[in-house]
Amino acid sequence: MCRAPIASLDCMEEFSGTGGHLDFGRSISLGSNPALPLRHGSTPTPGLRYKNLGKSGLRISNVGLGTWPVFSPGVSDDQAEAILKLAIESGINLFDISEAHSETEIGKILQRAGWKRTAYVITTKVYWSTKSEERGLSRKHIIECVRASLQRLQLQYIDIVIIHKADPMCPMEVVRAMSYVIQQGWAMYWGTARWSQVEIMEAYTNCRQFNCITPIVEQSEYHMFCREKCELYLPEMYNKIGVGLMAWGPLSMALSDTQNGDKLFLPKGSFKTKSFSWTEDEINRNAALSPQGSWGKDRIDEGRRHCDRLRDLAALAEKLGCSPTQLSIAWSLKHEPVQCLLLGATSAEQLHQSLQSLQLLPRLSSSVMLELERILENKPVRPPMISTLALR
Amino acid sequence: MCRAPIASLDCMEEFSGTGGHLDFGRSISLGSNPALPLRHGSTPTPGLRYKNLGKSGLRISNVGLGTWPVFSPGVSDDQAEAILKLAIESGINLFDISEAHSETEIGKILQRAGWKRTAYVITTKVYWSTKSEERGLSRKHIIECVRASLQRLQLQYIDIVIIHKADPMCPMEVVRAMSYVIQQGWAMYWGTARWSQVEIMEAYTNCRQFNCITPIVEQSEYHMFCREKCELYLPEMYNKIGVGLMAWGPLSMALSDTQNGDKLFLPKGSFKTKSFSWTEDEINRNAALSPQGSWGKDRIDEGRRHCDRLRDLAALAEKLGCSPTQLSIAWSLKHEPVQCLLLGATSAEQLHQSLQSLQLLPRLSSSVMLELERILENKPVRPPMISTLALR
Amino acid sequence: MCRAPIASLDCMEEFSGTGGHLDFGRSISLGSNPALPLRHGSTPTPGLRYKNLGKSGLRISNVGLGTWPVFSPGVSDDQAEAILKLAIESGINLFDISEAHSETEIGKILQRAGWKRTAYVITTKVYWSTKSEERGLSRKHIIECVRASLQRLQLQYIDIVIIHKADPMCPMEVVRAMSYVIQQGWAMYWGTARWSQVEIMEAYTNCRQFNCITPIVEQSEYHMFCREKCELYLPEMYNKIGVGLMAWGPLSMALSDTQNGDKLFLPKGSFKTKSFSWTEDEINRNAALSPQGSWGKDRIDEGRRHCDRLRDLAALAEKLGCSPTQLSIAWSLKHEPVQCLLLGATSAEQLHQSLQSLQLLPRLSSSVMLELERILENKPVRPPMISTLALR
Amino acid sequence: MCRAPIASLDCMEEFSGTGGHLDFGRSISLGSNPALPLRHGSTPTPGLRYKNLGKSGLRISNVGLGTWPVFSPGVSDDQAEAILKLAIESGINLFDISEAHSETEIGKILQRAGWKRTAYVITTKVYWSTKSEERGLSRKHIIECVRASLQRLQLQYIDIVIIHKADPMCPMEVVRAMSYVIQQGWAMYWGTARWSQVEIMEAYTNCRQFNCITPIVEQSEYHMFCREKCELYLPEMYNKIGVGLMAWGPLSMALSDTQNGDKLFLPKGSFKTKSFSWTEDEINRNAALSPQGSWGKDRIDEGRRHCDRLRDLAALAEKLGCSPTQLSIAWSLKHEPVQCLLLGATSAEQLHQSLQSLQLLPRLSSSVMLELERILENKPVRPPMISTLALR
Repeated sequence: MCRAPIASLDCMEEFSGTGGHLDFGRSISLGSNPALPLRHGSTPTPGLRYKNLGKSGLRISNVGLGTWPVFSPGVSDDQAEAILKLAIESGINLFDISEAHSETEIGKILQRAGWKRTAYVITTKVYWSTKSEERGLSRKHIIECVRASLQRLQLQYIDIVIIHKADPMCPMEVVRAMSYVIQQGWAMYWGTARWSQVEIMEAYTNCRQFNCITPIVEQSEYHMFCREKCELYLPEMYNKIGVGLMAWGPLSMALSDTQNGDKLFLPKGSFKTKSFSWTEDEINRNAALSPQGSWGKDRIDEGRRHCDRLRDLAALAEKLGCSPTQLSIAWSLKHEPVQCLLLGATSAEQLHQSLQSLQLLPRLSSSVMLELERILENKPVRPPMISTLALR
Repeated sequence: MCRAPIASLDCMEEFSGTGGHLDFGRSISLGSNPALPLRHGSTPTPGLRYKNLGKSGLRISNVGLGTWPVFSPGVSDDQAEAILKLAIESGINLFDISEAHSETEIGKILQRAGWKRTAYVITTKVYWSTKSEERGLSRKHIIECVRASLQRLQLQYIDIVIIHKADPMCPMEVVRAMSYVIQQGWAMYWGTARWSQVEIMEAYTNCRQFNCITPIVEQSEYHMFCREKCELYLPEMYNKIGVGLMAWGPLSMALSDTQNGDKLFLPKGSFKTKSFSWTEDEINRNAALSPQGSWGKDRIDEGRRHCDRLRDLAALAEKLGCSPTQLSIAWSLKHEPVQCLLLGATSAEQLHQSLQSLQLLPRLSSSVMLELERILENKPVRPPMISTLALR
Repeated sequence: MCRAPIASLDCMEEFSGTGGHLDFGRSISLGSNPALPLRHGSTPTPGLRYKNLGKSGLRISNVGLGTWPVFSPGVSDDQAEAILKLAIESGINLFDISEAHSETEIGKILQRAGWKRTAYVITTKVYWSTKSEERGLSRKHIIECVRASLQRLQLQYIDIVIIHKADPMCPMEVVRAMSYVIQQGWAMYWGTARWSQVEIMEAYTNCRQFNCITPIVEQSEYHMFCREKCELYLPEMYNKIGVGLMAWGPLSMALSDTQNGDKLFLPKGSFKTKSFSWTEDEINRNAALSPQGSWGKDRIDEGRRHCDRLRDLAALAEKLGCSPTQLSIAWSLKHEPVQCLLLGATSAEQLHQSLQSLQLLPRLSSSVMLELERILENKPVRPPMISTLALR
Repeated sequence: MCRAPIASLDCMEEFSGTGGHLDFGRSISLGSNPALPLRHGSTPTPGLRYKNLGKSGLRISNVGLGTWPVFSPGVSDDQAEAILKLAIESGINLFDISEAHSETEIGKILQRAGWKRTAYVITTKVYWSTKSEERGLSRKHIIECVRASLQRLQLQYIDIVIIHKADPMCPMEVVRAMSYVIQQGWAMYWGTARWSQVEIMEAYTNCRQFNCITPIVEQSEYHMFCREKCELYLPEMYNKIGVGLMAWGPLSMALSDTQNGDKLFLPKGSFKTKSFSWTEDEINRNAALSPQGSWGKDRIDEGRRHCDRLRDLAALAEKLGCSPTQLSIAWSLKHEPVQCLLLGATSAEQLHQSLQSLQLLPRLSSSVMLELERILENKPVRPPMISTLALR
């Protein structure tokens, strides 16, 4: 499939398409003294903004640090600490944690760094699984999890406790337990991750019925190839019940395929969602196996169309003078409902690169955005209402 | 009264009726290291399942350990500890406590064993008595009881505090006090024991009116000869207000007559409910005294019919290749409303035998169950609604 | 005014009118070991009963110890301790405290005696005054008072905190503050003293509106010459909103005039309520001053009628074989709404004498009670409802 | 503009217009022992009264100490301590704090002085700013602020926590957080400062909807030249929802221009509200620049009229035998809605002078007040209701 060139972008003239990657200023001081008072009020990072999360009073930076990659096997303790320091120095005030191991490590870094507790926001998660049969999303499990997290973090309180996945069995128990956790002073707020809008709404209804504290945020996957929930349904949640959106995507989380790098924009294997599991190699390999392979013709065709899109995106990024990853991050932040986009990094340098994306935002004019929609061909629309009247 | 043989049972062919007692595998390792990580997710005991208790999120094993017999006079400290260890290793995650003495003993064992607090669920009870005139079921009494239990158990919290018997005087005070106990973090949940469905419903109504935390479980006697409440009324409680059923019976609690053992299926004396106080000897002795004895002809006849039933049950158990006790346990577990059946034991060996019952369940086909109903002749039915209109 | 003799009392024959004072058995062991386990379940004192206070689950003895006289200037520390020990040994499980000083002293005795905390009920008071201008009945004042009481008592919690007098300014604040005190675990219950039925009702309404914990008791003066509130209005409070009555009277509190003793039944001076401030001497002295004195003829006549009544009561007590004080105590206890009558004492002997009154109760037959009403001439009746319709 | 002389004041004869400044008695003992028991019940300062704050039960003196000037740069530690001691000895029981620095200093003084915690009321503030981008009026911010204040004050609780300015984003979160702060025992009450009546009403509505604790006070600027909100709208808040008024004004806070002193009644520069930023010098300087200066003719004319008013007020004060500042304080206190007027001072002497104003109150007869209104010409009136009907 051939596409029109992006020459029609009217704002492109506004900046010098260097053809190189975006890096404005390189003023980061990786070795600076972390105990120095943080520069409040004046963000050191151009484009970094603070927004109220949901309709709460909590103000967080529009990008947060997703700490999962930070504490992944290949990263040394020193590197991890450098990433957190750069984040804080860059004005990022939110650290999102996804694992017990990261809690322990962040706990140690926070102790060493001596940052004021008021200067950062910690979000961590309560996981549960139907696989592990002994554990439901029970009051017991929630309380035991939160207390264990606090111990690992060596903190008096977590700012936001996120319940990972909803349990249809016990929405009432969850809202009571979360209110308890907040009433105990163990958390300031609570939120959800990977809940459907119906599940969020049910929890909210239970909160109001039992005078419990309502959740303020839904953490959701959001990127160029995963748009429906965040663009169609979460804005409604925000408007109606004040639940904001904290987004993450494989690219912003630095989960891209290291082999292909930014070139092909394709995380491979490391992240197992259906929408993002391909690489060109896989497509070609499967095409070669066809028709004996496990992939049908439709899937191979769709895979090839996807590769075309990725090439177009890479070309557009080049024109804009940034990497595809930077374009991807800026594109996510450009969408109003995203109050905070989690950035991951396995090195301070990588985080620094991601932060440059913030300066791309003014350049994503309406015509650039339109061009992007033309490439992506996946702007979500609500399914039409079917009137039973019309069916007669 | 003569009964048809059970040859018509169609699923009987499915297993080898050995005529011996059920013991599959004997793989228990009584001397294994208790400090080893528990095998979560894969139950070591065939047939052991985890279910949400009531409509709460708390997942418990379908059999729990009733610790009353465990700490009875004849059992040494080592034996008691061995029973608890076998329970945990078998995948049982619920210990039900009925006495202050047991709390102290279990507290010591838990300390020594070092099991993770998340790995087990402790239920204990608040008793009160109209006999002891100074004690009503007061807020003072509940709080003092729970704090004393915590001290004896050396735990930070009890998982479920059970109020033993309802006090018609003060349902509102009880629900407030239980909410307080939970809000203090001293308990995760509360439940009831030996409350009528009306009393449970009234407590629930009070909870909803005052925004208190609702009970999640009723502990109730349930076995082949005590069925009405659990089969007719508690399922309604579960469906309407989410209160689950934790059942115990004299046999599952290892309270059978040691002399007659499993042979005659008759606990004597040790357990004083009307429905279970006979043994064949007693019947015969009373029959011999008749008509001068205290038992009338009707009672003696009913006693003999009961003995016939027990013989039929023993015969059926033999055909199924299990002991009458194992049949009794399996029969209780076969009933949907029973979310957790408490097993008692005075030795690890006895608990092991009881746990074998779980494997009987698939063999209790509908035809076996029908045959059992034919033997028992006591399937409970709701009394017919009497219309005052019809009485005119 | 001359009265008919009480010869018509039909139950008088039932016991030997010894003409002496009531003392059944004298089995009290003032020197017994206080650390001995208390005899629960069997009251050592005939006639002592346990009742639920209000509609709460708290069961208290029908007589409590009012500790104000116990710690009055003339009583040594040893005497005070002896009184408390006798009370506990007699089955009294309620100590009512009215002063900071008494709290400190009782705190010491409780420490020494080592009684189980479950064995007694402590009630103490929050006082406030419009005189002391800086203090209203504020949340601040209530919390500061209760914490100070706990420190003086060396206890973890008070069983019932009593608010002495209502403040029309802030009923809502009071119910919230009392709920807070209870939620903090500083008290189990709260009650009122000297509140009108309208004030109690308003507090109750506020409790229900804001889901606060309702009071369970009103402490009120009640004796032969102060009957209206307790007989006419508090039963309604009990029936409608579960507020019980804890009563005290000058005589039961051992506040009688020591000079005239029990003979004339007249507390002088020590107690300053209008209805109880006379003695015969005062009447005579004032009569002698008449008409120049401050008392008018009506008051002197009423005083003389009162003296006649007292003489009739003393004569009836003699016939019943008890002292006037014992008769007074028994008469108060005879009235259903009195769930607990506070007895004061300045010596163990005096408390022992008062406790004998409990055995009088069966002898206060309906005819004796009628005779008493005939003497008192003050049975309260509700004022007639005035229909504005009838006034037309 | 020429005004009529104030000879028509009919109560002027009631006291000797000495022409000097008011100082009745000078009986203050600046060196007295602060550890002495405070003289409760009898205020040492004539005219000092205790009132319930809002419709709460908290009784506070009608003047409180605003501690901002007390801990300003020019004041030594000893002087500051002397001011607080004089305040307490004068019967003032409220200290209002506006800065972290003052909290630390007051904490030290309270420790040294050893006053009973029941004897004083501490109010302090939660500030937040949209300028400091990371900080909204969040639960996190409120809790962190209050805990930091408690630490600086070395106190277990603050009596009233005041939220400085409303955040339209999160009224619900604020009322929940304040209820939490109170439920934790960190504060007894909460209030607002610089909230509009609509914002107060919305917070109140949220409190009632979610059963949270309502605010009891609004702190507001109030003086002769800033009257509208306090005179027109806050009385309604008091009557409807029980929110009282704690007032401060530049003069009562001792923020007057030190150069011009009391003579011209003009704080210059130090206080930056539009209504109070002039001095005669400035007017003259700007008039000299006219018409090239930044001030238009209207503004210069208004400035001159203001100077005339100030001269008339100074003349009236002289006749009343007091300073203009004392007249200003008395005038504020004369207005019913002011339940507490905050007085500031940079020396004990200055506080003493301000306290003398209390004795002026009886002399502010209705004719004096009328005369004052004639001078001020700014008695606020509600804007007329505009009927859309009339506009047709």
